Amino acid sequence: MFQEKDISPLIKEAIHALSRLPGVGKKSAQRMVFHLLRRDKDTAMSIGQVLPRLVTQIHHCKSCRQFTERDICEICISRQHAAQLCIVESPMDLLAIENSGAYQGRYFILHHYLSPIDGIGPEELGIQTLETLLTSGDFEEVIIATNGSVDGETTAHFLKMKLEQFPVKISRIAQGIPLGGELEYTDSATLAQALYHRQSVS
Amino acid sequence: MFQEKDISPLIKEAIHALSRLPGVGKKSAQRMVFHLLRRDKDTAMSIGQVLPRLVTQIHHCKSCRQFTERDICEICISRQHAAQLCIVESPMDLLAIENSGAYQGRYFILHHYLSPIDGIGPEELGIQTLETLLTSGDFEEVIIATNGSVDGETTAHFLKMKLEQFPVKISRIAQGIPLGGELEYTDSATLAQALYHRQSVS
Repeated sequence: MFQEKDISPLIKEAIHALSRLPGVGKKSAQRMVFHLLRRDKDTAMSIGQVLPRLVTQIHHCKSCRQFTERDICEICISRQHAAQLCIVESPMDLLAIENSGAYQGRYFILHHYLSPIDGIGPEELGIQTLETLLTSGDFEEVIIATNGSVDGETTAHFLKMKLEQFPVKISRIAQGIPLGGELEYTDSATLAQALYHRQSVS
Repeated sequence: MFQEKDISPLIKEAIHALSRLPGVGKKSAQRMVFHLLRRDKDTAMSIGQVLPRLVTQIHHCKSCRQFTERDICEICISRQHAAQLCIVESPMDLLAIENSGAYQGRYFILHHYLSPIDGIGPEELGIQTLETLLTSGDFEEVIIATNGSVDGETTAHFLKMKLEQFPVKISRIAQGIPLGGELEYTDSATLAQALYHRQSVS
């Protein structure tokens, strides 16, 4: 990497700070710093202004644990009468589902997978908040939309057990071959699931 | 992309600002924002603190046009008696040469390629500053280390003509096959250069 001794301390500090962003290595951080210096001081100022506000003013929605500046987030307010609740692990997962355009209900965000070994228990997942939400709301269906990974499956299983006390239909997003996917290149576990959950078309 | 309407304005603003960094798309910016919110508020604060300082306190070294907080940069001071001057296009190129460990002299940074069509003339390249540096310094050799691209070559040719008035040896970094490069996969122009500039080994 670059010779530390001969570089401006402030440039070094900026490279170091940016290289702590996910997916940004030292070389990309260098490129960002020189780009900002040479061509885009405005962006540097905008980022400098917005990031501290972001992490001080944003917190969890009291109802669904989505990140928001308000007490109750935009989705919880605009869809307060929705009959469906979709449980996801992260805000990125929420965005992915929103982008599909196939869902108009409310969400609940866990922010973690259940992982007793890492000290992530029901409390960290906000199960208490989820239970309050289900008691106070008028939901007909809860869709468990955790990932298809081992952690996601374990968490889904745990949620299913927790939710059985409520008078709601509990679903799990379907697993199978992806759209456009070829059987030849699909892993055998996915193929087994796709066969097991086959749907009648006759 | 994500549904604008249902996302916190502050999160949207942060995603927008970060997506203006080079090499960062909307999806990476989303990932960065949620990463900062969930796991690394310190990094958000550091970046927020350093970027505005970076673009307000850093300027060009009066001697070599490197980015620095001082009037004269670290390299110009520590190597003030160097007999070699290496002309590069960008600070990234300077870092690349420093990383090679093969050069201990001073630098001059153009910050642009010569491009009359884009309004980039000798003034934008700092030719006046370069001439002052060469008049006042005690250089024996000037190495033109612009890229091997058409723009780099044009600029190198222009610099060569400008420098002929000075009593210094003028060199251009060598072109040829890269270390570990295979002839079979080397483009023909590079191969022609490598043959033309062949060196005696007997």
